[in-house]
Amino acid sequence: MVNKTDPCPVAATLRLVGEAWTLLIVREAFFGTRRFADFQRRLGIARNILSDRLGKLTRHGILRRVPVAPGARRHEYRLTRKGLDLLPMLVAMAQWGERWLHEEGGGIRLVDRRDRLPIRPVRVRAADGRELNAHEIAVEFDVDHPPGEG
Amino acid sequence: MVNKTDPCPVAATLRLVGEAWTLLIVREAFFGTRRFADFQRRLGIARNILSDRLGKLTRHGILRRVPVAPGARRHEYRLTRKGLDLLPMLVAMAQWGERWLHEEGGGIRLVDRRDRLPIRPVRVRAADGRELNAHEIAVEFDVDHPPGEG
Repeated sequence: MVNKTDPCPVAATLRLVGEAWTLLIVREAFFGTRRFADFQRRLGIARNILSDRLGKLTRHGILRRVPVAPGARRHEYRLTRKGLDLLPMLVAMAQWGERWLHEEGGGIRLVDRRDRLPIRPVRVRAADGRELNAHEIAVEFDVDHPPGEG
Repeated sequence: MVNKTDPCPVAATLRLVGEAWTLLIVREAFFGTRRFADFQRRLGIARNILSDRLGKLTRHGILRRVPVAPGARRHEYRLTRKGLDLLPMLVAMAQWGERWLHEEGGGIRLVDRRDRLPIRPVRVRAADGRELNAHEIAVEFDVDHPPGEG
């Protein structure tokens, strides 16, 4: 388990969505999957694990559980604003996999629906638009929120 | 465990770096950590787990093991091109955590070393530079590399 007190937002994000099934469920939700049975079939995931992870994602406000129709008893899961905001991370992950794990993870390409052109590689940019590498980035710590070792 | 045959590059990337310690080791490497003892101290990770994960990252070409000086017996770990290319994913993860898990993961800010201004939120863009949301992205499958269910 990851150190529960590491104040780094990478660690905090990993604690929430770092577990592989969790992020693959989010990926499926981006592909448009909403129903329990569809998540199960598409991911080949055990019911109990799927149920647990959907519950976790709902409790943490990444998915919301809504009736399939007004007043209906059956529910489906939809991405919230917080969930939709995971897109850049997922796309960065997909592009890295496409580039470096092509043997294993190749075979797909993310394209712009409008013109079918590949989307741009996700890049890190400064306020003025310059592309930044790791050496050009610094981490600042809030004075009123002291960091741990991480 | 994640389905080992899922051809999606998100799944492939998760199989390699989705495990939390693995990605936190990569984060530390971006912060400039190179020595085994420094990874151990900064992450508070058990020696056997650290050794295992550094071995995995080295075997997969994300870190490389180099003598600390020419001819030295002691080694250190440095990010390869493949490892450095994880930066956009890590920054996207950090920014999501900063935004949505501030209580838990707050307290840091990624800034441009040159002017200390916060770096831009990582965004997904089309070839022509338009920002894309999830509905504007399509997934294409290579004909010669048929997809599974994922």
